[in-house]
Amino acid sequence: MPRIHFHQQLSELKDKLMAMAALAQQAVETAVDAYLQRDKGLCKYVKQNETAINTAQRELDEMAYELLAKEQPMAIDLRFILAVIKINGDLERIGDQSMGIARRTKETLNMEEVDLPVDFAAMGEFAGRMIRSAVQALLDGDAQLAESVREMDDDIDRMNRRAHADLLKLIEEKPEFTQQAMKGILIAKNLERIADHASNIATDVIFWVRGADVRHQLSMSMD
Amino acid sequence: MPRIHFHQQLSELKDKLMAMAALAQQAVETAVDAYLQRDKGLCKYVKQNETAINTAQRELDEMAYELLAKEQPMAIDLRFILAVIKINGDLERIGDQSMGIARRTKETLNMEEVDLPVDFAAMGEFAGRMIRSAVQALLDGDAQLAESVREMDDDIDRMNRRAHADLLKLIEEKPEFTQQAMKGILIAKNLERIADHASNIATDVIFWVRGADVRHQLSMSMD
Repeated sequence: MPRIHFHQQLSELKDKLMAMAALAQQAVETAVDAYLQRDKGLCKYVKQNETAINTAQRELDEMAYELLAKEQPMAIDLRFILAVIKINGDLERIGDQSMGIARRTKETLNMEEVDLPVDFAAMGEFAGRMIRSAVQALLDGDAQLAESVREMDDDIDRMNRRAHADLLKLIEEKPEFTQQAMKGILIAKNLERIADHASNIATDVIFWVRGADVRHQLSMSMD
Repeated sequence: MPRIHFHQQLSELKDKLMAMAALAQQAVETAVDAYLQRDKGLCKYVKQNETAINTAQRELDEMAYELLAKEQPMAIDLRFILAVIKINGDLERIGDQSMGIARRTKETLNMEEVDLPVDFAAMGEFAGRMIRSAVQALLDGDAQLAESVREMDDDIDRMNRRAHADLLKLIEEKPEFTQQAMKGILIAKNLERIADHASNIATDVIFWVRGADVRHQLSMSMD
């Protein structure tokens, strides 16, 4: 009987993680929409979403710690719960980065509108897809899908470097747009960091599924 | 002191509603992506998301009923909580409709791929934006924004009628694609229903904000 109860709680933990992930994804999408549409109302929505993320994070953490304390799970279940706790933290930081985008967006609303040579929509969608795939990998215990998320991280790094270079060039050529271009550089950087968190999630999934600490392997292979 | 506690609970109720809305939006987006990319894994994700929606709906309902029972709120707060309960139901049914899309998508995976003359991505995005705006209208108590959501409903009705007509034409011209076109008709209908639920949410927001039952006015004006 206690085991049945435990598995029910585990599945509720998964449900809560999914809601947290949906909020994080919504934060990214809404922040990018707010920036592209210069929409103050959407900035406010990101702020309210951030509050909801913090509430969801707290509840998820409490549930995970309670499971750890009361059930003393072993092996695969223990690693899963530990992964959820870390992933929860990454999702919360995705909310923070999205708030950063919303804050910068609000600052650009007083500036003249400039069409920057960066596809922020594509970057945002890409980062959003990484979050979804990383969470999907967790729910399915799919290490291969998680690997693919880590590979996607290289693409968004490349997009960010290109955005950075193109915006610096714009500043050189049209110094009157320096402020707007600088905001663009920082927002691209926010998106790159969001992708990093998705990649962290994927790493934790691989850790959970394979039972091997791939982060350690990675740091050794990089020596 | 009890009032402070009550307002804290109200704000937690809002947080939970936001998580529920994020899940519903994610359901729509993921279901449409699953269909367009013919991705079985994403169909499964919609299914898991549906489980998370059901859990979130139950928790939100419980919290709302508890607030009603214990706090006996009056006037604007009472109407707000009643609106949340109804909106919660609409969001859950958005999850159901998204599951319908995922189920149909799975059925199309065995069929030959056909490029249908319908922009499902645009319909899905439009419906998703309606959900977000309706929830934003609730959180901000913005009846005007809610009105605009109800107006958006006409656009998606038009898209659905056009999809329907174009797909029937395709069946006439290329009867070998009947099955795929029929799935397309049903998926467009799912999206139109999702938009209906977003429109219901907007109506409840107007009811809450204005204290007037606009649904009743509507039904009278349609007599």
